[in-house]
Amino acid sequence: MNTSNQEASPLTSAATNSKGQRLSPSALLEYCDHKIDREALKTLAGQSILHPRQFNRRSVVAIAQLAALLESRNVEMDKPLDGKIAITAFFEASTRTRLSFESAVLRLDGKVLSVPDGQVTGIAKGESLADIGEMFNTYGDVVIMRHPDTNCLDEISKNLQRPLINAGNGSGHHPTQALIDWYALLKWRPELCRSDCPPEKRVHLGIIGTPGSMRAVKSFVRLALMFPGAVKKITLISELADPVGLDLTEPIEESAIELEIINDVQEVLPELDVVYVNSIAFLGDSYRKLDARYKLDAGSRLKSGAVILHPLARNDEVSENLDETEHNLYFAQAAGAVFVRQSVLASVLDRLDRISGLGES
Amino acid sequence: MNTSNQEASPLTSAATNSKGQRLSPSALLEYCDHKIDREALKTLAGQSILHPRQFNRRSVVAIAQLAALLESRNVEMDKPLDGKIAITAFFEASTRTRLSFESAVLRLDGKVLSVPDGQVTGIAKGESLADIGEMFNTYGDVVIMRHPDTNCLDEISKNLQRPLINAGNGSGHHPTQALIDWYALLKWRPELCRSDCPPEKRVHLGIIGTPGSMRAVKSFVRLALMFPGAVKKITLISELADPVGLDLTEPIEESAIELEIINDVQEVLPELDVVYVNSIAFLGDSYRKLDARYKLDAGSRLKSGAVILHPLARNDEVSENLDETEHNLYFAQAAGAVFVRQSVLASVLDRLDRISGLGES
Amino acid sequence: MNTSNQEASPLTSAATNSKGQRLSPSALLEYCDHKIDREALKTLAGQSILHPRQFNRRSVVAIAQLAALLESRNVEMDKPLDGKIAITAFFEASTRTRLSFESAVLRLDGKVLSVPDGQVTGIAKGESLADIGEMFNTYGDVVIMRHPDTNCLDEISKNLQRPLINAGNGSGHHPTQALIDWYALLKWRPELCRSDCPPEKRVHLGIIGTPGSMRAVKSFVRLALMFPGAVKKITLISELADPVGLDLTEPIEESAIELEIINDVQEVLPELDVVYVNSIAFLGDSYRKLDARYKLDAGSRLKSGAVILHPLARNDEVSENLDETEHNLYFAQAAGAVFVRQSVLASVLDRLDRISGLGES
Repeated sequence: MNTSNQEASPLTSAATNSKGQRLSPSALLEYCDHKIDREALKTLAGQSILHPRQFNRRSVVAIAQLAALLESRNVEMDKPLDGKIAITAFFEASTRTRLSFESAVLRLDGKVLSVPDGQVTGIAKGESLADIGEMFNTYGDVVIMRHPDTNCLDEISKNLQRPLINAGNGSGHHPTQALIDWYALLKWRPELCRSDCPPEKRVHLGIIGTPGSMRAVKSFVRLALMFPGAVKKITLISELADPVGLDLTEPIEESAIELEIINDVQEVLPELDVVYVNSIAFLGDSYRKLDARYKLDAGSRLKSGAVILHPLARNDEVSENLDETEHNLYFAQAAGAVFVRQSVLASVLDRLDRISGLGES
Repeated sequence: MNTSNQEASPLTSAATNSKGQRLSPSALLEYCDHKIDREALKTLAGQSILHPRQFNRRSVVAIAQLAALLESRNVEMDKPLDGKIAITAFFEASTRTRLSFESAVLRLDGKVLSVPDGQVTGIAKGESLADIGEMFNTYGDVVIMRHPDTNCLDEISKNLQRPLINAGNGSGHHPTQALIDWYALLKWRPELCRSDCPPEKRVHLGIIGTPGSMRAVKSFVRLALMFPGAVKKITLISELADPVGLDLTEPIEESAIELEIINDVQEVLPELDVVYVNSIAFLGDSYRKLDARYKLDAGSRLKSGAVILHPLARNDEVSENLDETEHNLYFAQAAGAVFVRQSVLASVLDRLDRISGLGES
Repeated sequence: MNTSNQEASPLTSAATNSKGQRLSPSALLEYCDHKIDREALKTLAGQSILHPRQFNRRSVVAIAQLAALLESRNVEMDKPLDGKIAITAFFEASTRTRLSFESAVLRLDGKVLSVPDGQVTGIAKGESLADIGEMFNTYGDVVIMRHPDTNCLDEISKNLQRPLINAGNGSGHHPTQALIDWYALLKWRPELCRSDCPPEKRVHLGIIGTPGSMRAVKSFVRLALMFPGAVKKITLISELADPVGLDLTEPIEESAIELEIINDVQEVLPELDVVYVNSIAFLGDSYRKLDARYKLDAGSRLKSGAVILHPLARNDEVSENLDETEHNLYFAQAAGAVFVRQSVLASVLDRLDRISGLGES
């Protein structure tokens, strides 16, 4: 194998967060005896990543394992995405998500065609998404798209023949963000990857937000429902009477996990092991900001050892005075994003055999 | 030759359109006995590509041949643009054209400096194009520019010492688009590349649009006039009394091809072998949309075997219900864009010797 | 050493200005007996470049020497920034500066994550610069930032753990521009790099502008004060009573260089060896344009042999009719920008050992 040792590159050597919990990827790898579920990853080859329903507990864990291997530095890579071009088509601007994907592509030695703001650069002036998909067929090998319309995936897929990665479709889903959220949880507590997680390690999950209209929250809940052995209860905290939304109704009914909906965060906060918060303002101009009573700060009655997740960017719903505390898992969560996206891209583009340490091929 | 076999890269392996006619590049190559006119390509070395008058039938065919070789996958390349930086300077936004050029550069292992929207990113705030040209001298090796002002080429050329590729100058020209149009025609019917095309293969060309004010149409006609052995007649269909414009008057007079101008598309449609359509709305804010009677759909009285060309993006002047028909050559046309631009870039940057299969050097 | 000979790349071979003085980098290298002060460069390894006070005469000269080596083509490089990602985060748009940095990164075989316009792409919508810095930790290896707020450096540095290069912070500083200005002066007259410059080579420096509110001017003066052996006098020409500003008061007091402030450029113009001009309009919307009496053209009473510096972009404060004259050092100055930034990046990212001709390692 003509390898380029990752140790030579400080890219991975110091890729850790500045504050809050610092999670070692080794813990997860050791918990799995360094065996990565390559078969589960191979099922993604050539596939589009559109909706969290495409995953199951096994593939979520496998993606996290490969992300951990990549983050661990203990890996040799032979330019995994050499000769591949990824198109980042952001019709709804999001520098954070775009740069995260582009960094993942570049670190795997792929190339990037970037559309930082499809709405203003004229790409969509009157042109149909179907025609744009036809165009992308000959420009690149994989398309990473964010778009404000929930129906965008069907539209572009009319002609697109390349794998499509959904980086957020309107009020639909944001599947790779949910994978990132779960990577953070699995690094934090590797026992959660088991179907029979020890009872004392199982978590009570609190979610401040509205999965029905917030795609990142919705995708996170969708994956959480795949971990009945690890999640003992989900509490949705929302000011709305029905925050769940149609898309989750059936998965919730079919899951063995108890789900309750309450209005007052104070009521349940001291019981939660994991608190997931999102920033409404970032979901679109028509959304309100989170009400003041749902905001968390260092004075909030968080359980000892409880951790906060936030997909970022944040406004003031999670105070900066929490950054230096043990509750801050959101910085570690953000620090894992590039590795999870590398894991997804190497799998989708079928280049796992260029990454050593993945076991038999 | 230290080669990187293109077969390893799916970039070229499946770079075909989803619908309509799928054109094999092999047909053109075989028709030419796989002999590519390398001498014609070498005349482009170090040259700017500003105006279609720089080409002739021989060089148009040679560029198409190299594009076909690149599209055929039966080629080995030694990083043709290694160490070269292309600047894509789009003072008028066009994601389609910009990405097409950038994809071409990246596939030849060149690098890109991208200015997605020069009008809003401050590059042109008060600064002269001459000064911008001076700046580009030290930033890159070739400049690919689109600009709303027709005079932009003279302005930037005051100081620019690098080859300049005109990707659309106001109501001027768009020479590489015309090369792409002709690549589609030559793949579709290779006999058209001959000066003595068999009579039954010669085409009656219909053009719906106004070459005088539409640069893509103007450039296409300019190249068409270089193929008197292949084009038996050109019919311009326009609502204007004089759609031709000054720039084409002399070439039309000097050409052996008959050119007629009519107002009613229905009158001539059943006789046309090739129908070229453009979308007025994309040419600038002050242009009108095409009148409804000029629109084509699956019910239009197209001749059997007739093909439609459109430089895209389209609005509704070519209905999506034509996409699945044999008349749809516009998707194949779009699919050839990246290969034609690779062909031009490798020639201009004088790196033909890094592409195998081009005959003696 | 697995080298890629730069001679193969026309990037450096013709990287010279089209008009005005053409400066050979060899003169500076020969003046220093081709000995580059590697120790001075090594002090920059891992450092952020925020303020000109971080430099001294020795390091300014060393950076210029390495820039000259890179510009001279007489150098072999082993992909100095291989595996490194630079993030160009421009919250205040500046295509000139952004492309210059990106070109420098690409020429050293690094990779780029580009944020062409942070203000409009949503990166800053409500998100703190501290959170953005945290994000950048895991996305890249060095951050190059321009921002309209003078306090931005402190803000982003709260969490950022990667070297930060200040590409302009509000009315603060623009240190790499000042290095570029001095690179031009040292190429023009290599004797200026000495602490004991021969008297007849010492220069009277005139500066048309307001260092107190113009960051490029301020940074240039700050470096000039480090060259008391070369600069015999600085004359500030401004319509303001106190153009100096707080940041420069102490350095001026401590410097051995005489500094005078006058209002009328005509009074001193015939005595100046170097005239530094800036374009106020480019500093922000709230700044006025330079008054007509401060404008220079071919009719201005410039001393024979005097040279004009301008960080560009310019409006009309330096007339284009000066471009063809010997006074035009500003085009040569601009042509050196990419080499100086390469010099800084290779030093900061500690990859000097991948550039041959730098002496012992």
